[in-house]
Amino acid sequence: MKKNALYAQSGGVTAVINATAGALILEAKKSNKIGKVFAAKNGILGALREDLIDTSKESNNSLLSLRYRPGGIFGSCRFKLKDLETSEKEYRRLIEVFKAHNIGYFFYNGGNDSADTAFKVSQISKKLKYPIQCIAIPKTVDNDLAITDCCPGFGSAAKYIATSIQEASLDVQSMSETSTKVFIMEVMGRHAGWMAASSALARKNKGDAPHIILLPEITFNQKEFLSLVKKTVSDKGFCVVVVSEGVKNSKGKFLSESNTKDAFGHAQLGGVAPYIAELISTKLKLKNHWAVSDYLQRSASHIASKVDLAHAEAVGSHAIKYALAGMNGVMPIIVRTKSSKYKWKIEPAPLSKIANLEKKLPKSFITKNGMGVTAKALDYLNPLIQGESNPPFKNGIPDLKEFKLVPVQKKLTTWR
Amino acid sequence: MKKNALYAQSGGVTAVINATAGALILEAKKSNKIGKVFAAKNGILGALREDLIDTSKESNNSLLSLRYRPGGIFGSCRFKLKDLETSEKEYRRLIEVFKAHNIGYFFYNGGNDSADTAFKVSQISKKLKYPIQCIAIPKTVDNDLAITDCCPGFGSAAKYIATSIQEASLDVQSMSETSTKVFIMEVMGRHAGWMAASSALARKNKGDAPHIILLPEITFNQKEFLSLVKKTVSDKGFCVVVVSEGVKNSKGKFLSESNTKDAFGHAQLGGVAPYIAELISTKLKLKNHWAVSDYLQRSASHIASKVDLAHAEAVGSHAIKYALAGMNGVMPIIVRTKSSKYKWKIEPAPLSKIANLEKKLPKSFITKNGMGVTAKALDYLNPLIQGESNPPFKNGIPDLKEFKLVPVQKKLTTWR
Repeated sequence: MKKNALYAQSGGVTAVINATAGALILEAKKSNKIGKVFAAKNGILGALREDLIDTSKESNNSLLSLRYRPGGIFGSCRFKLKDLETSEKEYRRLIEVFKAHNIGYFFYNGGNDSADTAFKVSQISKKLKYPIQCIAIPKTVDNDLAITDCCPGFGSAAKYIATSIQEASLDVQSMSETSTKVFIMEVMGRHAGWMAASSALARKNKGDAPHIILLPEITFNQKEFLSLVKKTVSDKGFCVVVVSEGVKNSKGKFLSESNTKDAFGHAQLGGVAPYIAELISTKLKLKNHWAVSDYLQRSASHIASKVDLAHAEAVGSHAIKYALAGMNGVMPIIVRTKSSKYKWKIEPAPLSKIANLEKKLPKSFITKNGMGVTAKALDYLNPLIQGESNPPFKNGIPDLKEFKLVPVQKKLTTWR
Repeated sequence: MKKNALYAQSGGVTAVINATAGALILEAKKSNKIGKVFAAKNGILGALREDLIDTSKESNNSLLSLRYRPGGIFGSCRFKLKDLETSEKEYRRLIEVFKAHNIGYFFYNGGNDSADTAFKVSQISKKLKYPIQCIAIPKTVDNDLAITDCCPGFGSAAKYIATSIQEASLDVQSMSETSTKVFIMEVMGRHAGWMAASSALARKNKGDAPHIILLPEITFNQKEFLSLVKKTVSDKGFCVVVVSEGVKNSKGKFLSESNTKDAFGHAQLGGVAPYIAELISTKLKLKNHWAVSDYLQRSASHIASKVDLAHAEAVGSHAIKYALAGMNGVMPIIVRTKSSKYKWKIEPAPLSKIANLEKKLPKSFITKNGMGVTAKALDYLNPLIQGESNPPFKNGIPDLKEFKLVPVQKKLTTWR
């Protein structure tokens, strides 16, 4: 009897995580070697609760449409399993659920935390004597997973950011004589500046916006920052600043959390863009505007990158191939092959080398003044936003297909 | 000798104001009855300073590419001319510039302030004895001009907002069990709620996000708002709120400006989304996220509405037709013809009926509880976001053509 598979999404979703899900399910069908693909409702929580969705009830058309659907169609969650000793109950429950539903393959689609969980599940086979193959599948707009050249989800967020900055900069520039002089856009990236860096892709010519990029890798230097804003406004008439949510001050505190009562007489509500804006208003007396794109940047499948989408689908289908080849405890990663034109392939990498690691912007990607990115960074980033993948629209907005999301009948007692 | 024309952009730019400029210039060329079309650099300021751009130096390809270019290619400004008596100097200077460059047609592309200025310029002919025909051309993401059915620029902003809310809502929904419960998006619209209302177009089925829309037409009722947020989270697991920047409290103060020291112990930096977010954190203890799209929403030509683009081009080309038909002091407006399918045409309307008026959301467009919009509103809004006008991309971002922007040689003494 063919083994069934379980697929779960984990952590923050992306514009293309559903593309991975769709490709995985369709590849499993095509292989004819896997029974059913169940999806855990709301991530690992669904696996523990035996809240499973029978994806075989969805039409191929619906599954194909996942390519264009942001969010996580089966639900995701923030819930971390600890090590096998501390969380033995949870791991034993997972095995119960796997057994009850004849699950031989577990696919966990997430970031570095999830790679860690997947790594632990992959060890169950030996330690708790249940034959399960566990494959982690990369996903994160943060682009901070180790070993893989990039992470599915990042390229689309990067394309959104570059396009938005290009557009907003043209707006600001045209009004700058009598209106806004400084525009600030806050982007995600709590620990790594990949998303902020990608805004530099908006430049067509040297000196184009964005003029300043504040990265979480570099401690905020207020004096140098304000001086560069002033100089840019004086030289170009306006200044566009991209700031990562994770930028910290010299005391190691997030700017968005810093108590600014001393400086401005009142405290922050959070958000680093309004913090920077207030700084510019107070210290430079320059009219400014700010934007915080928040979830918009990681769910903008209407401007997804075709390359990113191809990555997302490839890691999904390769996860199935690796499982059928008998692999366990690996992740399909994206490898950039050395050639003048951008080329890539998928290879398996051991989870032990990925779990819990965080890849930050290398020093060589950051300009000397710490407020911009180098040509080397652009060479790396540029291929990842190539190509447009326009979703089908209906009635003026992206067309969302209906999903049945049929629950699998439970066989076990309620968990907790 | 053929008269030349002067075109100027005014006030906040939109995703399609350049489309109007391109259509106007190309129509003037085609007519063969107008000499050159000059563009004022940075709006009316350029006209006063004799800072003119010779658009005849641009290739037809560049002019056609304006269809896809956000911002204002010739620059815009916030600068209001007062009445003829108070600002006689300025009006006399305008005439000087018109005379020096043989300008017989003045096209002013803006909102209600600009319609007022254009109306005054249209009266120069009589009062100051200079034969000028002045045509105002509508433009504003605020959609608040009187008489015209809608304003070029609005439909594209509406499409951006509806699409963004659809996408972000799918993101929030998939994570809501263990993460964000309430998502708040701030949109523009200081006095009229057209943009906030358009977020309702994101709904496919009844009950879909956005669940609450806060309009500037309705005084903020904190108690009822919080109670609806709570109920929505309890019913659906999450709640999506769209809030217009112009929402006011019962004292008539913008929420974004209200001093909240009493309530939360500290004051605001501005931005109504963080205000609402803090309210939800403090009063309901619900995890929330917020976004402020700011200029992104009015410059997003990558997701422009095809219908809006067609409107923008039509008002541009009709402005030329009206000028050549001898009209003065009019605006080409968009008229919705009565039919089951959406149809529209362009007609001239007298500026006296448009200048300085502000069209707010009619009462019949707002739900009884004041926190949503009616089916009637959707019927009005829906046609305006139809169709996609994907700009050409190059190297991963929208392709921007180069413009020469050749200055016209000055003939007068420096102004001021």
